[in-house]
Amino acid sequence: MKAEIVAIGSELLTPFRQDTNSLYLTEKLNQLGVEVIFKTIVGDNRQHLLSAAEMALSRGDLVIFMGGLGPTEDDLTREAVAEVLGLQLHRDDELLAKLEKRFAKHRIKMSPNNAKQADILAGAVVLPNSLGTAPGQWLAGNFDDQEKIVLLLPGPPHELKRVFEEECMARLRAKLPPSFIATRVLKVAMMPESECDARVAPIYKGYPDVETTILAGAGEIQLHLKMQSNSLEAAQEKVDRLAGEIEDELGDFVFSSRGESLEQIVGYYLQMRNATLAVAESCTGGLLTERITSVSGSSRYFLGGAVVYSNDLKTDFADVPAELIEKHGAVSKQVAAALAGGIRKRCKAALGIGITGVAGPTGGTEEKPVGLVFHALAGEGSTDVVERTFPGDRKRIRWFASQQALDMVRRKLV
Amino acid sequence: MKAEIVAIGSELLTPFRQDTNSLYLTEKLNQLGVEVIFKTIVGDNRQHLLSAAEMALSRGDLVIFMGGLGPTEDDLTREAVAEVLGLQLHRDDELLAKLEKRFAKHRIKMSPNNAKQADILAGAVVLPNSLGTAPGQWLAGNFDDQEKIVLLLPGPPHELKRVFEEECMARLRAKLPPSFIATRVLKVAMMPESECDARVAPIYKGYPDVETTILAGAGEIQLHLKMQSNSLEAAQEKVDRLAGEIEDELGDFVFSSRGESLEQIVGYYLQMRNATLAVAESCTGGLLTERITSVSGSSRYFLGGAVVYSNDLKTDFADVPAELIEKHGAVSKQVAAALAGGIRKRCKAALGIGITGVAGPTGGTEEKPVGLVFHALAGEGSTDVVERTFPGDRKRIRWFASQQALDMVRRKLV
Repeated sequence: MKAEIVAIGSELLTPFRQDTNSLYLTEKLNQLGVEVIFKTIVGDNRQHLLSAAEMALSRGDLVIFMGGLGPTEDDLTREAVAEVLGLQLHRDDELLAKLEKRFAKHRIKMSPNNAKQADILAGAVVLPNSLGTAPGQWLAGNFDDQEKIVLLLPGPPHELKRVFEEECMARLRAKLPPSFIATRVLKVAMMPESECDARVAPIYKGYPDVETTILAGAGEIQLHLKMQSNSLEAAQEKVDRLAGEIEDELGDFVFSSRGESLEQIVGYYLQMRNATLAVAESCTGGLLTERITSVSGSSRYFLGGAVVYSNDLKTDFADVPAELIEKHGAVSKQVAAALAGGIRKRCKAALGIGITGVAGPTGGTEEKPVGLVFHALAGEGSTDVVERTFPGDRKRIRWFASQQALDMVRRKLV
Repeated sequence: MKAEIVAIGSELLTPFRQDTNSLYLTEKLNQLGVEVIFKTIVGDNRQHLLSAAEMALSRGDLVIFMGGLGPTEDDLTREAVAEVLGLQLHRDDELLAKLEKRFAKHRIKMSPNNAKQADILAGAVVLPNSLGTAPGQWLAGNFDDQEKIVLLLPGPPHELKRVFEEECMARLRAKLPPSFIATRVLKVAMMPESECDARVAPIYKGYPDVETTILAGAGEIQLHLKMQSNSLEAAQEKVDRLAGEIEDELGDFVFSSRGESLEQIVGYYLQMRNATLAVAESCTGGLLTERITSVSGSSRYFLGGAVVYSNDLKTDFADVPAELIEKHGAVSKQVAAALAGGIRKRCKAALGIGITGVAGPTGGTEEKPVGLVFHALAGEGSTDVVERTFPGDRKRIRWFASQQALDMVRRKLV
């Protein structure tokens, strides 16, 4: 089965916004053995939308339209698909009642234009959207003598994912021949891309039928391994063998072999060791804490943290002696260590992290340039400090520093 | 003039890679007064490429093909465009000599398939590519009784930018009537999209020559106004007039009229009022602090914050009486207010924010469901608390809550 994805929204034709939903959909479709052959991006313009819909519906076996299902006059996806397929739209009373109830629950009056979100293509199945007002629609049938599946999905990424996951995956699987895709994702922390590639290329070149993709980010490299086969066992065995050889080569630089994020892995280890964590961060400004707490259930091992921009707060919240800051400067190995030890004690945590550095773009000096960050990890009886100078802008430096700190916790507990 | 962009490359149909060239091109084209009406992404497949090229060449006045100009068998852009337009390709001797020289310079033997990079569409102008081996091509002519411009550009972003900047901008400008674009971006906080649209639609409909695009996110709506004209003054005057009328209608829901983020605006106001801010957050887990400190220079008004997941830390860092938590629960109006007041005092800040809620997905109860968040802002002599129940997943709820809290600071200082 070949899929074609049409992303609808004038904002996607500006320099500011980009369709990202299709990346998620492609991943899911590939898992089902479905290849994406075209992606089209079209604005909220009736004539253009009709043109794109006509083309897509003439080519793909599975055509997914995303966006343009909202309540505004610009939201024309339902109407355009109905017109191209020669189908009627009917207003679904049950859906309309649900919409009204939803608005009432949030104590907002529903404006009349919202009602069009209850318009359904004749023959379509309504795909409930628990996260938004516009439901998706599933239409399977014979059009122009071809069996086709047409999907209308809401544009907001979290809504699209929920609807696709809960309502579309099982329906698609039932329509498709069994095809198996074995995958593995290895994640590597704090290793330069060129070094990683030089070490793993000789290995993955020995597995020509496994597709290996290397993606590099700030402080993290992902190795995506994929093999498609009619035997899941054979494919998985091969992918796992390659993954194992790469893990042997890269050793403990590999922090995850099932796709987990570094903050998830750190959470697993903390729970496994029955340990707790507290954080005192300066230049990362809450980013490290935000990453740790983005993991659901993190309250089981994360006690809390302090963002201590001012020197007074470094003393008040993490018991860093004012003399120490005076003597070595706020951005120093000593203050990082004191932050880690202080917050650990204050929060009665097993481990404490301290971060201090210069995220820039201003505030750098010759001695302490933009990008310089000290990361400290305090445990029972010992404190480790790592000094790094990261490249890039404020955002990238902060990300690198949070990554380094998480990696120190991981290496401590591994 | 309407443009259509076709991005060619099978890697752009995987879950890992995305066309980003089109964002750059759209920005440049908009500056010339050219609107992008379609973007298509197609793989290195002859039949699919022909289908995409045929469609694009039938619709756009300016059709830009990017990628597929390399030396491999998969690089089919030249051939496909020639076939659709019914043109011959001829091998350019001068280009071929240059290619051979380039290879010789790098002491690499040129493989025969590289020669096809010297194949030029009949009537096309060669666009030199100083950063790579594949030159671009410019073809202007009458096809199917329509004047069209067809561009072939190399796919690697740095090559595409160089060739477009140096070889295409001036040529396009010469082909186009002088045109100016006036823009404004209004940002609106914490207003439902449907309400915003219902209130502003009657206004912007009175300005049919200003293009109004509405982008909605969690707790934020952006209104992008754009007008194209042969007089920049007239266009700017009209866009500003529309922006003014929308601001009058939406009042203080509008927090920015020049594109600034909410955290930037809050920073401006704090600096303007010479005020400082401190934060004690629970369910947002550092996100609010991270957003505030993502602004360069935020250390001038942001003192610090505490992420107080555990009840003990609510007491230790923000002086929330343990009895208060016992009596009302950690997620309560009273605890939010105490967090705000406590952190304000502890940090000696002019304003203190307290946030407590249920970010989910677990931890909700009938009385205190997932999404329920209390936001408190404490100032000299008074504390305001706002209770909201946000829809969506953990990430979205946390974002909404951080947005609500920032908006309270803004409204306090406005």
